[in-house]
Order: sequence, then C-alpha cells, then structure tokens
Amino acid sequence: MTAAAKKRSDTIGQPPGALVYMGDKSDKEIEITISTYTSEKYNETVTKSLREVDLSRRDSQVTWININGLHRIKDLEYLGQYFHLHPLVLEDIVHTDQRPKLEEFGSYLFFIVKMLQLDGMEVDYEQVSIILGDHFVISLHEHEEDIFAPVRQRLQAGTGRIRGAGADYLAYALLDLIVDHYFLILESLGEGIEDIEGELLDRPSPDTLSQIHRLKRDTIMMRRAVWPLREVVSRLERSDSPFVQDHTLLYLKDAYDHVTMVIDSIETYRDILGGMLDIYLSGVSNRLNEVMMVLTIMATIFIPLTFIAGVYGMNFRYMPELEWRWGYFAVLIGMAGLAVGMLLYFWRKGWIGWRRPNPDPFAHLDLKKPRP
Amino acid sequence: MTAAAKKRSDTIGQPPGALVYMGDKSDKEIEITISTYTSEKYNETVTKSLREVDLSRRDSQVTWININGLHRIKDLEYLGQYFHLHPLVLEDIVHTDQRPKLEEFGSYLFFIVKMLQLDGMEVDYEQVSIILGDHFVISLHEHEEDIFAPVRQRLQAGTGRIRGAGADYLAYALLDLIVDHYFLILESLGEGIEDIEGELLDRPSPDTLSQIHRLKRDTIMMRRAVWPLREVVSRLERSDSPFVQDHTLLYLKDAYDHVTMVIDSIETYRDILGGMLDIYLSGVSNRLNEVMMVLTIMATIFIPLTFIAGVYGMNFRYMPELEWRWGYFAVLIGMAGLAVGMLLYFWRKGWIGWRRPNPDPFAHLDLKKPRP
Amino acid sequence: MTAAAKKRSDTIGQPPGALVYMGDKSDKEIEITISTYTSEKYNETVTKSLREVDLSRRDSQVTWININGLHRIKDLEYLGQYFHLHPLVLEDIVHTDQRPKLEEFGSYLFFIVKMLQLDGMEVDYEQVSIILGDHFVISLHEHEEDIFAPVRQRLQAGTGRIRGAGADYLAYALLDLIVDHYFLILESLGEGIEDIEGELLDRPSPDTLSQIHRLKRDTIMMRRAVWPLREVVSRLERSDSPFVQDHTLLYLKDAYDHVTMVIDSIETYRDILGGMLDIYLSGVSNRLNEVMMVLTIMATIFIPLTFIAGVYGMNFRYMPELEWRWGYFAVLIGMAGLAVGMLLYFWRKGWIGWRRPNPDPFAHLDLKKPRP
Amino acid sequence: MTAAAKKRSDTIGQPPGALVYMGDKSDKEIEITISTYTSEKYNETVTKSLREVDLSRRDSQVTWININGLHRIKDLEYLGQYFHLHPLVLEDIVHTDQRPKLEEFGSYLFFIVKMLQLDGMEVDYEQVSIILGDHFVISLHEHEEDIFAPVRQRLQAGTGRIRGAGADYLAYALLDLIVDHYFLILESLGEGIEDIEGELLDRPSPDTLSQIHRLKRDTIMMRRAVWPLREVVSRLERSDSPFVQDHTLLYLKDAYDHVTMVIDSIETYRDILGGMLDIYLSGVSNRLNEVMMVLTIMATIFIPLTFIAGVYGMNFRYMPELEWRWGYFAVLIGMAGLAVGMLLYFWRKGWIGWRRPNPDPFAHLDLKKPRP
Amino acid sequence: MTAAAKKRSDTIGQPPGALVYMGDKSDKEIEITISTYTSEKYNETVTKSLREVDLSRRDSQVTWININGLHRIKDLEYLGQYFHLHPLVLEDIVHTDQRPKLEEFGSYLFFIVKMLQLDGMEVDYEQVSIILGDHFVISLHEHEEDIFAPVRQRLQAGTGRIRGAGADYLAYALLDLIVDHYFLILESLGEGIEDIEGELLDRPSPDTLSQIHRLKRDTIMMRRAVWPLREVVSRLERSDSPFVQDHTLLYLKDAYDHVTMVIDSIETYRDILGGMLDIYLSGVSNRLNEVMMVLTIMATIFIPLTFIAGVYGMNFRYMPELEWRWGYFAVLIGMAGLAVGMLLYFWRKGWIGWRRPNPDPFAHLDLKKPRP
Repeated sequence: MTAAAKKRSDTIGQPPGALVYMGDKSDKEIEITISTYTSEKYNETVTKSLREVDLSRRDSQVTWININGLHRIKDLEYLGQYFHLHPLVLEDIVHTDQRPKLEEFGSYLFFIVKMLQLDGMEVDYEQVSIILGDHFVISLHEHEEDIFAPVRQRLQAGTGRIRGAGADYLAYALLDLIVDHYFLILESLGEGIEDIEGELLDRPSPDTLSQIHRLKRDTIMMRRAVWPLREVVSRLERSDSPFVQDHTLLYLKDAYDHVTMVIDSIETYRDILGGMLDIYLSGVSNRLNEVMMVLTIMATIFIPLTFIAGVYGMNFRYMPELEWRWGYFAVLIGMAGLAVGMLLYFWRKGWIGWRRPNPDPFAHLDLKKPRP
Repeated sequence: MTAAAKKRSDTIGQPPGALVYMGDKSDKEIEITISTYTSEKYNETVTKSLREVDLSRRDSQVTWININGLHRIKDLEYLGQYFHLHPLVLEDIVHTDQRPKLEEFGSYLFFIVKMLQLDGMEVDYEQVSIILGDHFVISLHEHEEDIFAPVRQRLQAGTGRIRGAGADYLAYALLDLIVDHYFLILESLGEGIEDIEGELLDRPSPDTLSQIHRLKRDTIMMRRAVWPLREVVSRLERSDSPFVQDHTLLYLKDAYDHVTMVIDSIETYRDILGGMLDIYLSGVSNRLNEVMMVLTIMATIFIPLTFIAGVYGMNFRYMPELEWRWGYFAVLIGMAGLAVGMLLYFWRKGWIGWRRPNPDPFAHLDLKKPRP
Repeated sequence: MTAAAKKRSDTIGQPPGALVYMGDKSDKEIEITISTYTSEKYNETVTKSLREVDLSRRDSQVTWININGLHRIKDLEYLGQYFHLHPLVLEDIVHTDQRPKLEEFGSYLFFIVKMLQLDGMEVDYEQVSIILGDHFVISLHEHEEDIFAPVRQRLQAGTGRIRGAGADYLAYALLDLIVDHYFLILESLGEGIEDIEGELLDRPSPDTLSQIHRLKRDTIMMRRAVWPLREVVSRLERSDSPFVQDHTLLYLKDAYDHVTMVIDSIETYRDILGGMLDIYLSGVSNRLNEVMMVLTIMATIFIPLTFIAGVYGMNFRYMPELEWRWGYFAVLIGMAGLAVGMLLYFWRKGWIGWRRPNPDPFAHLDLKKPRP
Repeated sequence: MTAAAKKRSDTIGQPPGALVYMGDKSDKEIEITISTYTSEKYNETVTKSLREVDLSRRDSQVTWININGLHRIKDLEYLGQYFHLHPLVLEDIVHTDQRPKLEEFGSYLFFIVKMLQLDGMEVDYEQVSIILGDHFVISLHEHEEDIFAPVRQRLQAGTGRIRGAGADYLAYALLDLIVDHYFLILESLGEGIEDIEGELLDRPSPDTLSQIHRLKRDTIMMRRAVWPLREVVSRLERSDSPFVQDHTLLYLKDAYDHVTMVIDSIETYRDILGGMLDIYLSGVSNRLNEVMMVLTIMATIFIPLTFIAGVYGMNFRYMPELEWRWGYFAVLIGMAGLAVGMLLYFWRKGWIGWRRPNPDPFAHLDLKKPRP
Repeated sequence: MTAAAKKRSDTIGQPPGALVYMGDKSDKEIEITISTYTSEKYNETVTKSLREVDLSRRDSQVTWININGLHRIKDLEYLGQYFHLHPLVLEDIVHTDQRPKLEEFGSYLFFIVKMLQLDGMEVDYEQVSIILGDHFVISLHEHEEDIFAPVRQRLQAGTGRIRGAGADYLAYALLDLIVDHYFLILESLGEGIEDIEGELLDRPSPDTLSQIHRLKRDTIMMRRAVWPLREVVSRLERSDSPFVQDHTLLYLKDAYDHVTMVIDSIETYRDILGGMLDIYLSGVSNRLNEVMMVLTIMATIFIPLTFIAGVYGMNFRYMPELEWRWGYFAVLIGMAGLAVGMLLYFWRKGWIGWRRPNPDPFAHLDLKKPRP
C-alpha cells in the first residue's frame, strides 16, 4: 500500500495521462498470451512484444490478450494506440494503487479489480485491469505469474459453455476466478481466527496480541479491496452496454452474490476480531489478578510471622517469654495457627481453590470490601 | 462456517454451475416426501429416489416435494431437468454457504433461507432452498431431520386455511416455521445473557468471559443469517410475481414483521453483550483493587513494626532502651498503638469497611493523593 | 422481554392467526369500558363481557371501546367477528412482544404502541393496540390498570376540542398520552444519570457500575420500544386514510415531534452512559494507582531501614561499629536521614501532595522512567 | 435539560395546546420591543404589555416584535389571537425543550432555534422562537437579556442592506446572529480541548478525567441543539414559501454552510475527545507501571540483602563464618555486589534509564518473559 | 483550526459580506501573477496590485489570475467589482475556515478547496479559492508560497493538452495538483503508522502513545478537509454549467477517483490507528504483568526464607536446634531446598521461561486459581 503510494509523490505536477509504472520494477520480460477462439477451435500465441504479432481480429471469433507485467510502457502505449484506449485508462493501468472501478467508454468497458493471493503469511495484492470490447478482452496484471491459467485450460478443453458464450462471458470468467481466490484468503483468515480463539481463552500471550493485530490489518486491507468491487459488479450487471449480452447477466448476478458473501465474511471477521481484543485485555487483567493473589497470599502470611520472630529477636533485658521453658514451642505453634487462619481466610475469600464454600463469601465479611 | 468455506477452495477454476456439494457428506440415503393435496384430499409418497415416482402434476392440486439431504447430486440433476431449473440454481442449492436470497425466474421463484436449530449449546446452521412455481413447491435441506413435519401435519389434518390456499401459502408456511425457530434460538440467547448478567456483577470469572465471547459470536453469526432474510421477505412481498397471490401478501407482511422482531432482538443482545464486556473488565479491575488493598493494608501495618523489632534486635553495646525495666512492654504498646493508628487511617480512607465515616475523606488528607 | 419470548416456543408449527395470549395470565376479570359521545353528550358503560352490551353505533356519535386485560380470548374473538377484524390483527393483539407498527386495512387502521410505566426502579412494558375505524376506536392493553383515565376525564368534562373532533382525534389523544408517559421515564433516567455522575468522579464503587449497567439496559430497551413508533406516527401522518381527517394531521405532526424528542433524549443518554463506563474504568485505575502508591511509599521507606537494622543484628564477632559509643545513635540518625530523603524524593515525584514543586519533575530525574 | 423535562410530567393528560411555561418562572416583567422600519426610517417602541401598543401594520414597512421572557402567558395568548397563531405554535413556544424545527402555516413560517451562550464554564441553552409572516417578524426567547441587540443596532444605523431587504432578511439576520454565537462556544470547547491535550500527555490527573467528561457532555448536548438546525435551514432554503424572497436564498445558503461548519467541528471534537479518554487510560496504566517498577526495584534489591543479614543474625552455636576475622566485611562486600548486580540487571531490562543499551534486551534473557 | 475560529468571535453582529481576513496577518506584499495564453503563445505579468494591470480579456485566450496572500482587502474588493463577484463569495475567500464547497453563479463557478502541505512534522492547512468563468480562472490562497508553480511551468512549456484545452481544464489542473499533494501527506501518515507499528509490539513507550494520538488527530483533521471535497468534485462533474466542457468531464471523473482513494486511505488509517491504541493498552498491561511477576517471584522466594532466619534469630533460652552441631547447615540446606521448590513451582506455572513444560499447567494445580 504505502510502497505504491510512495511513487505517487514523484508524479506531482505531471500532466494526467503520463505513464509512470508504480509497482515494483523488474528486469524480467513481460509475457503476452493471445488466444483466439470460436466454439469450434482455439488458437494461442505467446510473445514478448505486442508489435511482433498480428492483432487484427474478426467478428466471428473472440480475441483475448493477456499481459503479465506492466513495466514495459512502450508496449502499453502501442496497445493504447491500436485499441484507441483513452490516456487516462493507460494511466490507471500502470498506477497500481487504484480502487476497483468500472468505466464505460464508447467502444469498450474498462474495469479494475484486485487479485489477492496468499504469499506465505502475507496477503499479496495485485491490480488486474480488464478491457472488454467488441469481441475482444484484454487483461493486464503486474506479476509474471499466470493467474488466469485455469480459464485458459477451460478454453483449450472446450468443455462447458465458455467457448461459445462470447467475450463478455470470458470477462465474467476472469472476474469469477478472482472472486474465487478471495474465498481462499477468507479460509486462511478464518483458520487464523480459530487458532487464536483457542489460545485466547486458555493461554493468552503477547504473541496472540500481535496475531490479532495482523489479522485485523488483513481484514481492513481486504475490505478496502473488496467493497468497491461490489459496486463494480453491480454496475456491470445493470449497465445496458452493448458488450454485455443478456444471458451473461445471470452469471454476473451470481458473481455479485459471491462478492456480497465475501464482504459479509469480512465484516463478520472484523466483528469477531474486535471482540477478541477486548477479551485479550480482560484475560491479561485476569492473569495480573492471579499473579497479585499469589504475592498477596505469600506476603500476608509471612509478613506477620516475620514480625513475631523479629519481636522475640529483640535484645531487651527483661523479656519474660524468653525465659519460659516452652516459650519457643508456644511461639511456633502460635505462628502455625496464624498461618492456618490466614489460609482459611483466603480460602473463604475464594482465592485458594481446593473447594469453593459459598457463592458469595463477601456477604459474611464486612472487612476489606472496596468502599462504595 | 469455515468448514463450508474450506470446500470453496476446491472449486477454484471450475465453471459456474458445476455441482459439488459443500456440506458434510454422509452415506445415508436421502429421503424424499412428495405431498399432493387439494382442499378435499391429501396424498403422501415417501421415496429414496426421484426417478421412481410420478412427478406429473395437475393444476387442480398442489404438489410439494421435500428433499432431506443434498449429497445425491444425480437426483438433483434429474430434478433440475424435470423442472427446467437454471444450473446456477442447482449450484446454489448444493453450495451451502450462500446468503439468504430471492431470485425470480420466468417459471418459478427461488429463495434460500437458513434454518437455525439448537444442538446442545451450539447453534446448528442448515441451508434451506425453496422453489415456488405454478402449483408446486420444492423444498431442499441438508440434514435428514424432517424439519417441516409440523406443516405436513397441518396439511394432513386439513384444518385452517392451508389446504385451500395454494402453493404460495405453503411456501409462506415453510418460511414462517423457519422464522419461528429463530425465536427459540433467541430465547436461548436471552437466557444465556440473563445467566451471565447475574454472575457478572456478583462473581465474575474467566468462565464468564468465555461465555460472553461465545454468546457474542452466536449473535454475530445469527445476525449474518437473519439480516439478508428481511430483504428476501420484503422483496417477496413487493414482487408482482404471478406465483404469489394477493391474499398471501398479508401473511408475508406478518412474516416480515416477525423477521424484523428477530433482528431487533439480535441487535439488542449485541448491544447488551458489548456493554457486558466493559462491565466485566471494570469488575476485574475492581477485584484487583480489592486484592491490592489487602496486600497494602497488611504490608503497611507490619513493615514498620518489623522495622522497630529489627532496631531493638541490633547488637550495639550502648543501647540504653534495652536496659530499661519496662522497655520491652513500652515497645509492645508502641507497636500496638502504631497498628491501631494505621487501621484508623485505612478506615478513614474507606479501605476497611465496618462503617463509612464521610463521603469524601480525601478532602481532609492532603497526603498520598495522586499528583494532578 | 424474555418472559414473552418464552411463550413463542409454544406456538411453533401453529397456523398463523391462532390466538394464544403471551403475557402473564391472571384470574382477574377483564374490564371493558364503552364510551359513546357527541359534542353534546357523553355516555359510559362498564362491563365484564362484550356480549352483554349493545355495540351498535351510529354515525352521529363516536364509540370508544377500551379493554383492560387480554387473557379472555373468547371476548377478543367476539370483538373480531363483530368488527370484522383480520385474524392476524387478533393474533398481534395477544402476542404482546410485537414491535410498534401501523397496518392499514380497508375498514380500519390498526396500530400497536408500547406503554411504558415506572414500577419502582423497573420500567414496565405494556403493549397497547389501537383500532381506528369509521366513528369508532378500540383500545386494548394487558394490565387492569386504567391507563387512559385522563382522556376519559377530558371526554366527560367536555372541555377542549376532544368531544367535537371525531374518532381520529381520540386515537391521537390516546397516542399523545402514551408519548407523554415516555417523558416521565426519561426524567427518571435523567435523574439516575445525574446521580451516578455525581458519585462517578468523587467515589466510584461497584455499585455505580451496576447502576450504569442497569441504566444502559433501560435505554437499550426503551430505544427498542420508541424507535419504531416514530415510523408509525410518520406513516399515520402521511397516510391518506379516510379515517384520518385533515385537521388532525397537525396534531399528529406534533406527536411526531414529541416522539423525535424522546428518541433524541434516549440517544443522548446512551452516549453519556457509554462515556461513563470509560470514566468509571479510568477512575478505578486511578484508585489502584493511589493504593499502589501508598504501598510503594511505605515499602520503599522501611525496607532499606529494616535491612540496616538487620545488618547490625548480625552476630559476627568482629563488627567494629557495634563497639562504638555513639554507634546506635549514629545509626538511628542515619535511618531518619534516609527516611527523610525518601519522602523528599516522593514529594518531588509528586506522589505526596502537600505542595507540588514543578509541573514535570521527571525531566530532572533520569532514573526509573519507563523505558521508551 | 432535565430541569425542563421535569415540568413535562405536570402536563400529562392535558389537552394539546394548553399553555404551561416550562422554563424558570421569574417575577421580572417581560420586555417587548416593537421596531417598524422602511428603508428610509426606523421607529422603536419598548413596552411591558402587548395590549398597550398599536400592532397594526402597513405593507410598506416591516414590523419586528421582540419579546424577552415567556412567563406572561396572557400576553402570548393575546399575541396568538392577534396574529391568528395556531394553539400548537403557542404551546411549542412555551415548552422550551423543543428540538429546532420549521413549520409552515398558511400565513406565516414558524421556526424554533436554540441560542447557546457561555455562562462562565457552563453552556446556557435558550429556546428562541421566530415567526416570519407577511411584512412582520416575531421573535420570542426566555431570558430577559437582549440577545438581538446587534441586529437592532444595524437597523438603527441603517447601514448595509438590512433596512431595505424585507422581513425575510431580518429573520435571516436573527438566525445568522444565533449561528455566530455557536462559533463562540466552539472556540471555548476548542480551547478546553487544547488545554487538556497539553496535560494529558505530560501529567494526567483525575481532574483531567472530569474535564474530558465535561467537554464530552458539552459536545453531546450542543450536537443535539445544532444537528436539527441544519435541516431547518435547509428546508427554509428549499421552501417555496411566499415569505422568503429569492434574493434571500443566497444568504440562507450561507447560513446553511455555517451550520454545517459548526456540525463539522462538533463531530471533530467528539472524535478527538473519544480518543483522549483512551489515551488517558493508557497514561494511567503507564503511571501504574512506573510506580510498580519503583516498588519492584526497591523490593528486589533489599529483600535478598535483608535475608542475608537475617541469616547471620541467627543464634546457632556453630556458625563458622561468624568467627572469621573479616567475615563481617566479606558479607558487606557481598551484599554490595549483589545490589550492583541487581541494578545492572534492571538497567539492562531498561527499567532504570541513564542509558539504554539495546532496543530489545529481552532477546538475551530467557528468564521472566511472560509465558506465550 | 482554533486560531481561525478565534477570529470568528470578532465578526458577531456584523452584516454578512463584511470583509475581515481571518488568517495570519502579515506585512508582506501580496503577489499577483496574471497569465494569458492561447494554444500558440503564453504571456505572464507579475504585479503587486491589481489596479496597475490591464485585466481586459478576449475570448480567444484564457486569463489566469493567481493571487498569493489575502490580507489586502482593497485588492479583493477591486477584483470583486471588476468580475462582479457576489459579496458572500468575497467573504468566503477571506474567512479561511470554510469547508470545501462549490457554488454556481450565473457568470462563474466558485469553489473552495483545502491545500495540505507538510511543514516538518505538522500538516499545514491553507484555503484555496478558485473562480472559474468564461475564459478566465482566478485562484486565491493565503500564503505567499507559489503552490501552483508546476501548472505554470506546464503552461510555459506548452507540452500536453493544457494550453489548448480551455479555462475549465486549467481549473481541473489546479484541483488535480492539490489532490496530488494529499497523497504526499498520506505517504507521511503511512510511514508514521509503520514506524509506530514496529515499536508498538516490541517496545511500547509513552512516546508511542503520543505519536498515535498525533497521527489520529491528523487523520481526523485531514478527513475534515477531504470528505467535503468529494462532493465538490462530484457536483462539478455532474453540473451542466456552460463553463465545464464535455471533454473535461473525464478528467474530473479521474480527479473524483483520486479523492475517493484519498478518503479510502484516511478511513483505513483511522481504523488501523484505532486498533493500535487498544494494542498499546494491552501491551502496557502485559508489561505490568511482567513487572509484577518479577516482584512476586522475588518476594515469594525470599519472604519465607527471611522468616526462617528470623525464627532462628529469636532469643529464647530453650531452642534445641540452636545447640545442634549441624543445625546451621541443615537450615541452610532447607532454605536452598525451599528456594529451588519455589522456582520449580514458578517454572511449572510458566512464569520463568527456560522451557515450557505443558500447554496448560494450571490443570494440574488446583491452588491459586482465580475464583470462578
């Protein structure tokens, strides 16, 4: 988040539409996959540069251009010229801190979605731009990983309705794949929460605290990526764009339901995590109570005993008890009695737990109650 | 929740409409009950497979197909073909982590509701799918338990208006039964809250904390199941579907009122539970205060006395007091006086409670006030 | 609340419209008062059963039937038949856990309101159902107490516009009386809050905590009763029902303003009470601080002194100080100096309060600052 | 607030429109100022009773009747008769716990606003009622103070557009004056918050706590007075009343902006105060930590030393160390070493602050870490 | 904020439209830059007073008047007369505590925006007023710094579409520059949050607390400046003003997206900071726990040992152990055993951390558990 924002400051004063890629620059080549298909056949071309391939397309087939990697500005500019994309669209593609959004242009629809993937313990955010036009789809994303492989496999296999259903259904399939990945992150979050929940009540630790904090941050960040997507899908569904056919609407409605389920889960997790922090704080206070009780019991038993020992350690000449035959043993017995009395008192107070006498022992003791 | 979500990850990249049951798979047979009735008569057929029975229906009677158990995909596919259900509808039926929702199709209405039942201390969530068409109702749910038995009994008995009121009234009756079960859960939640409330102020324990946490989670989860239902019922009421007759609308309005009452109670419980956590924390702090007071009183009384005893235990050659005849007794009396003075001081401070002297004793003491 | 909800579970599976009274059953007779009036004269009949009286009414006069007690189902059924009330209306009347609501039927308006009365420290919730039709008003409530006596007295006296203003104005007058009672509860809440506020800052006690909790619950419950009423009155005001005359609208608007004022006060109290809990917690922490300071001061002064006394209580053969003539007195003076030094240190730290030296004494001491 | 509400209970059962003044009754005379002006000249009459003056007005001039004090019900009734005011309007004027509101009648607009003035540390709330009709404005408020003096001075001076701009502009000028006073209160709140902020981080005290509480209450109460005003001004601006001329609309829009700025500030203060309470609590905990560290350091150093002294104070016959020539000095040196070691340990732990060794010293110590 | 508000109190009772500058008065000259340009050429005039230059403009070129400094009221009045600005517009320009807003007048659009700049650690708020009319733009701001220099440079250079795109595009460019600066502040906030996050979990200090407080305040203040801007841009985009050409709308939409991104980030930061305060409080409690454990371990080990030493320091005549040959060594060994036992107990309890025995050792110990 902040990594991308850092780049923002370099663009101050630049005219809008200036192409400056905001993500991590890499030396890797970008990889471009061009798939053309009809319900009968499927062709695939993989290239390093858009200029080297034939982008001409026919109405009888659907063309899908997938670009992995955004750091080659020249290729994007060529793409923009070829498909007559607005400069602001190109700018949005390379400024990878955009919110998910949908924009309708005369000859194409442009939308931005966030792809979320688990990278170890961290959630990896990647901006995916999709352009849906007349019989073509262009998808662009930052990293070199081929996130859309499952869709391409379905295209190759030719099973299901995907090959015969047009460019809008392909765009939906990409969107659906991205939303499916959200469920993966949610599962991981849900497991993290269950793990914490277990140790929260049994043995809270500073580690638990930092995990709650991390999960809370994750839900906040994920929320930010998913909330605006709901509106994107909703507007896509309600738009009367010529690029979205009627029989695709039902699938978009399904995607909308899925996004709503994701949002629902995020909000539920937020609620639960919020409550956990309070529980943690209460648990820590409970523990402090316990520590203090141990100290208080020890101190309260031995401090008076030490005082008594101190009294008979005084060197006064006239201390009659010292001369008594059984004085020492009497004092020892007295001390033992005092200790037992103290323990009994703590037991009644419920601080020592081998058996609980009555539900509210305070009622019988008018001493040491906090002042009302 | 997470159990169902776990299955989600297996479906990534699959085309929409693929039927993969998400709940607990079981080896049990599914049980299908087909009821047909007019205002005059009632027929019931129980079967293990849809293929074995005659599903043809006449306009003069209402057909209700109730299916307990969703793990037999083949039967669902047969049902889908027979009633021309959309593939996404079938997918929603077996993906049991759906939100409650209503979808209108040309030849039927499809809605998803959550059945909540108490299973010991746990709330059991079950997805119920209801399809309402022209003179037929199909209801599907996960578990083998026959949750709709009371409605079937009313149909058999033939009392009330249920036999003569059409398929839409039957669908309403199923919905109404589900909402009635929510009140049961609410009662259980309400009792749980009252139980906690009692011990919260008298004797808070870590156990109370974990109960508050559990109840809070329950309200969060229940909220998630009930909130979207309100919109379902509202849209059902406002829809101009030909499958909902005018005289059923008033009953739907009644169901809407009930759902609103449930939501109202959930929000109230959430509010109360939220406050309880704060009260618990305050209660724990109060208790810590009490423990610390005991320690402070004991230490503050005996530490100076022990010091005095230590002084007269020193072995200096010239310590005139040691030679005095009544030295020992004078010291004992001095110690007793000191102890009484301390107790008096604590009594005035209100830390010892046999009688409270004045409302704000601090005003008289300029010592030991926390620094402003 | 939960008492009524408990009854809900008994009605599961029952057809809608079944009359089961949910409140406290009592053996008392119900009391029915029938008032008929024109601007000229006023008649009143008190009876135990509806069947014994003549309910026929003329357009030239207004008939008001007031029923105290809902446990006599037979009478309600008779009323329902006579006035052609919908079964769901009768069901709502006896299910006394309804939310306030307004329902428009062809020949009457039906609305439910909550009457709140102070019963000692507890708020007593009673459901009041009002049916407004052509020249008649029916009001029903649970308890035998005659809550509408002030309105009846105004009718008898014949002062003001009430006798000449029609049935809708009468219904308004009943509503207005109920809303007026809310102000009584608000006053009591406001006084409770002011009481707590006083002791909150001076001498917080566990008792304060339980009072805050109680008041918070009261506002939550009251909120639940009053929020929906606002919509009821608003819809009544905006409805184009023939039973509400134009010149009554202004009075309804006035009632709407009053309900809004009540809601405003409830929200304000909630806000204030929410803040109070935080203040309480801070107050308890302050008090703990104070207790700990006393302990720390005592221990920190006497522990080193006791150590010194212990040193000179050792029995080594060669301890030169013990032989000195003024050794004992030197040690006593040294101890006194140490104690004074400690007190001075605490005074500079601001823990002892006869005079505060400088605003931030920590700046001068580099010791014992918590580690940043 | 509660003072006014107390009076509410006296009006239960009274017919609406009954005039009972709810504010503080006083024996003072009310003061009535009648100003008539055209763009050329200005007349002013001050009287004690409305009956004594000529209220007839001409269309060529604007009449402004300003009444200080509402306890003379007779005068208000006369006013009501003369200007044909609705009884509910008169009731609202004397029930001084109204929310700000606007009501449109056929021959006049009636709106209620709250005047806020600083009275020492307290905020004083006063209800101001303004009636705007055809060429006249009536303003009524509770206290005898002449709050509208600045407007009257501008009328007398005849500068600016106020004399030539009609009754609606006069009403706007009164409203604008009231809103200007809100900024005064806001300034005072803002200064209070800045004062607290200073001591919050340096030296939090129970006093800070009570100040935060007071300021929080003030913002809650002020919010209650100002939020509804926004709607009043907005509706005034959007109303197509004949009494509001087009060229005044721009001024009303300006007033609307001012009210929005006030609301903005209140919400900001609320946010800041809410955060302050959390900071305070954290600060108190920090302080407790500090106190406990002092105690722990002292106790941890001296308790073992005292134990050693105690060992050599035992009276066993065979204790070889006691006979050694340098035993005493060896023990003293050993004690000093132990103390230095302890201090070093605390210094590494960062509890003693003359220099901090490494950012996380815990990494080197596997002892005493709280159990994860 | 409060500095500006302070000035408000001076304007009470003044007629609206009175020009009193609210910012810091300075003796510096104001600087006025007048740029006129067509797509072919660019002229620039810098002056100290508006009266000295020729403001006449032609339709073929765009005129941009930029004024740095608002304290020269005379110049503003001259500007107002020349361009026929409404008095309230001039008032809003000098009252620098306005909320961002858009106002449409017949011959110009007027909008107020807040420029935010980092001034060391502080955020500096400056009010920028922009007037967009037919072929002219007037921009006014408080400080002498030339914040719009980057736009002027682009005009001079003549690259991009700025020279040929009209006055509305210029106004957009100014707005865009201001929004770009918000990202700078966001970056700084984001870095601040990351810094705190690091130390929050490792080593929380009072300093961390005050930084959280500062950042929280900053987000609150920034939120206040940016939220209303969203509506300004949205209304600008949707307005059908003749001064905004169609091809500029797309750029305004882009600006709207940017403002939404800023708001999104602010809300995210608020959420994260809110959670941090809770984490901090938990961290402080953890630390207190740790301190208390050290104290409790030390006290609990040495207090009983000291008591034993005290017992054998008593001076009773008949104490048989004292006479035993190995009594002293037996006691020493006993003491060591007791200490080792205590350490073992604390180790099982998990308070001492060299190895953790079992996850929940409490299960084995029925002693000292807090009372349930």
